[in-house]
Amino acid sequence: MSSVKVTIIGAGSVVFSLGLVKDFCLTEGLAGSKVCFMDINEERLDVVYRLGLRYAEDLGANLKFERTLNREESLQDADFVINTATVTHNEYFMKRRRELVAKFGYFYGHSGMPEYHNLQLMLDVARDMERICPDAWVLQAGNPVFDGTTLMGRETYIKACGLCHGHYGYRAIARIIGLDPDRVTWQAPGLNHNIWLTHFYYEGKDAYPLLDEWIANKAEAYWEELAKAGREIPAQMSPSAIHQYKMFGLMPVGDTPRGGGWWYHTDLETRKRWYGGSGGGDTPQGRDLVLKHKEEKYEQMKQAAYDAKVRPIALFGSQKTTEQHIPIIDGLVNDHEGRFQVNVLNNGALAGLPDDVAVEVPAVVNKKGIQPLCVGSLPPKIMLEHIYPDWLEMERTLEALLSGDKSMLLWGILTSHQTRSYDQAVQVLEALLAMEPNEPMAYVEDINKHYKWPKNW
Amino acid sequence: MSSVKVTIIGAGSVVFSLGLVKDFCLTEGLAGSKVCFMDINEERLDVVYRLGLRYAEDLGANLKFERTLNREESLQDADFVINTATVTHNEYFMKRRRELVAKFGYFYGHSGMPEYHNLQLMLDVARDMERICPDAWVLQAGNPVFDGTTLMGRETYIKACGLCHGHYGYRAIARIIGLDPDRVTWQAPGLNHNIWLTHFYYEGKDAYPLLDEWIANKAEAYWEELAKAGREIPAQMSPSAIHQYKMFGLMPVGDTPRGGGWWYHTDLETRKRWYGGSGGGDTPQGRDLVLKHKEEKYEQMKQAAYDAKVRPIALFGSQKTTEQHIPIIDGLVNDHEGRFQVNVLNNGALAGLPDDVAVEVPAVVNKKGIQPLCVGSLPPKIMLEHIYPDWLEMERTLEALLSGDKSMLLWGILTSHQTRSYDQAVQVLEALLAMEPNEPMAYVEDINKHYKWPKNW
Repeated sequence: MSSVKVTIIGAGSVVFSLGLVKDFCLTEGLAGSKVCFMDINEERLDVVYRLGLRYAEDLGANLKFERTLNREESLQDADFVINTATVTHNEYFMKRRRELVAKFGYFYGHSGMPEYHNLQLMLDVARDMERICPDAWVLQAGNPVFDGTTLMGRETYIKACGLCHGHYGYRAIARIIGLDPDRVTWQAPGLNHNIWLTHFYYEGKDAYPLLDEWIANKAEAYWEELAKAGREIPAQMSPSAIHQYKMFGLMPVGDTPRGGGWWYHTDLETRKRWYGGSGGGDTPQGRDLVLKHKEEKYEQMKQAAYDAKVRPIALFGSQKTTEQHIPIIDGLVNDHEGRFQVNVLNNGALAGLPDDVAVEVPAVVNKKGIQPLCVGSLPPKIMLEHIYPDWLEMERTLEALLSGDKSMLLWGILTSHQTRSYDQAVQVLEALLAMEPNEPMAYVEDINKHYKWPKNW
Repeated sequence: MSSVKVTIIGAGSVVFSLGLVKDFCLTEGLAGSKVCFMDINEERLDVVYRLGLRYAEDLGANLKFERTLNREESLQDADFVINTATVTHNEYFMKRRRELVAKFGYFYGHSGMPEYHNLQLMLDVARDMERICPDAWVLQAGNPVFDGTTLMGRETYIKACGLCHGHYGYRAIARIIGLDPDRVTWQAPGLNHNIWLTHFYYEGKDAYPLLDEWIANKAEAYWEELAKAGREIPAQMSPSAIHQYKMFGLMPVGDTPRGGGWWYHTDLETRKRWYGGSGGGDTPQGRDLVLKHKEEKYEQMKQAAYDAKVRPIALFGSQKTTEQHIPIIDGLVNDHEGRFQVNVLNNGALAGLPDDVAVEVPAVVNKKGIQPLCVGSLPPKIMLEHIYPDWLEMERTLEALLSGDKSMLLWGILTSHQTRSYDQAVQVLEALLAMEPNEPMAYVEDINKHYKWPKNW
């Protein structure tokens, strides 16, 4: 058992910090370790810090907690940095941006504008780490994991691993077709948010025929039943996901069926057709629900942090989450070996992609490090229709970021299938660049300073 | 001087055959050679055969002419095969197809339907050659040159070289900005119909500043003058081409500015804005003019072939064309070395693309063969926004062809920026597959036999 220092950047994140604190408390091998919470929002930082202290009391965990508003300070002596921070994936900002681009004719924010702020932040953090804690791992939790892990891996010497929970979609597939997920052997490599179930065994036998049977005989009834009950269909087993399976030949897993192609997402009616119910989570209404849940969760966290009558254990239980961050740290630090789904630079793990592109693959993690399995290749159709196009989009996003070429932002918007004309693209680009900044934007270079039109424009 | 047998497949082509015959007659090194015309259209075959005989008389050329309706027969003992044949790029078929998809809301045929017939024909010819004349070169003139040259290079052992004339666009650029094209040194590598002016020198000095000056001070006047005169703007120096130069950083050359991005081609008004005049050649009206010119040219060819009072030389002159086919044959056969712009499998000539992708690059041609220059790389922005996307589209077209997977045709249509919904894509696919075949389609496998939905569809 070794004690380490783990820094959580963007610790006020509702999605991640609660679970991270709990997993930390419940991981014996990390007893004596120090958790440093860092956030730019003092109120949220205090909530998570107090919550950590009280949760550790509840669970009898031997941990030290620190908090700071200063990123550089937080990185001092860090062994691991979990970066959950986001500038633009904040629910309020995303809503504001969706509403802005809706005025220009875009449904649900599909403007094609390449990511900038979050990537610049990841790069800034990794560069800080090069100076301050060059031997530490960064576990990247905030999106875009694919672009960001590639970017940090190329531009810095920091050991970077991107993590997501989407791959657990295989469990939903199994459960819904009537199988015990714990008896499933599976593999779903690809790129983050773009992974495909290449192998799916139940008790050692190919389970794809069972899925086919479910689709042929039970899918309609399943969707109807949920509709009658007024419940949403999980995207993982939606008509869209099944259509993608038919179209591309393998089941899309996790966040993958939330994409799949522009034609599933053109407007609310189309979303209802392919995702059932009220159109699923990726609609303005669906996302308002997500925001509401997050607000409720945050209120609970505040209670658990400050209310003398409420204990964290009573609200949030004493079970580990299924998130991978803390078990991976445990594996690396204490040689408690495990199998995880990670995003790391390819280096041959997934055939057909360059070495310096972050792929999502299974890996064995132990004292030696994060060791991806060489999974071979995906079928040509999936490579050509999903993996390579996504790879190119990532490359353009990074090239735009690193060159600061504003015409590449415009080109990104022009590639949105919802863009109808050149002038519309120019207008929405200018509107996006003129948006009132949110608070975290003060911590990265101004987008209008970062991007310039090419000469002769 | 060596005599060879050159077979021209699709010899009834108005675009190519007249020039090929003339160049042949005017190339002394090929005296004594045999030209075998092959076509499935007996009337057109006879026209070009008679025209060849009479042109050779006019020019005093020592050539033998043969003709046949039988492809296998035409390939016997061939040293070179010039494949100008087309199934679907026939003007009448293209017009019929444009009009069909217009009913589904597509402007100027931009349905995204992947190519099949022409590629299957190229493959069939190359496979025949493997059996009948395995040492012959195929010079591929019919489109799609990019996909077809790659396909033949991968799937057969035949030496394949694709040829186009688009690269002469550099001469139009020079001429229009007031430079003597003969004093220009240039390079414009890429993929066929996707080439970019990386180097542009006038009398040894960078001429890009002269282009910039023309754009800043003279372009508007040039366009206005043509408009006043009721003349069309050449696509090479259209507002679209200049915009592409600003957007991507290098001048697009030849057929390249005819593409550039969906937003230049959404409807006739948009075409007028970016290409001036009545919208340029790539509009229904513009293409009708092309068809009319071809019909007039064919009438002239008939006259020159049959009319006792009309000599070919009087109608078509005694100057060599600028087409590269015959000079390349002369270079290979007689070691009359020359520099050409060719399409051949990459093998390292253009950095950043796989070896087995046909690139368009300059090459030295002599007895040793067709030897591409290693041109280095194109700028990242052009690679990411033009070269790689085009490469992927080609790969998908070939994978669809080789796998016979109908869902990949549907996916192709879904990638058209003019497709508005999934149902529209399904409908236009079915309509395209149900089109009344044209005559040449009888010579390749039926598209409805070739493509099948995947299992479980």
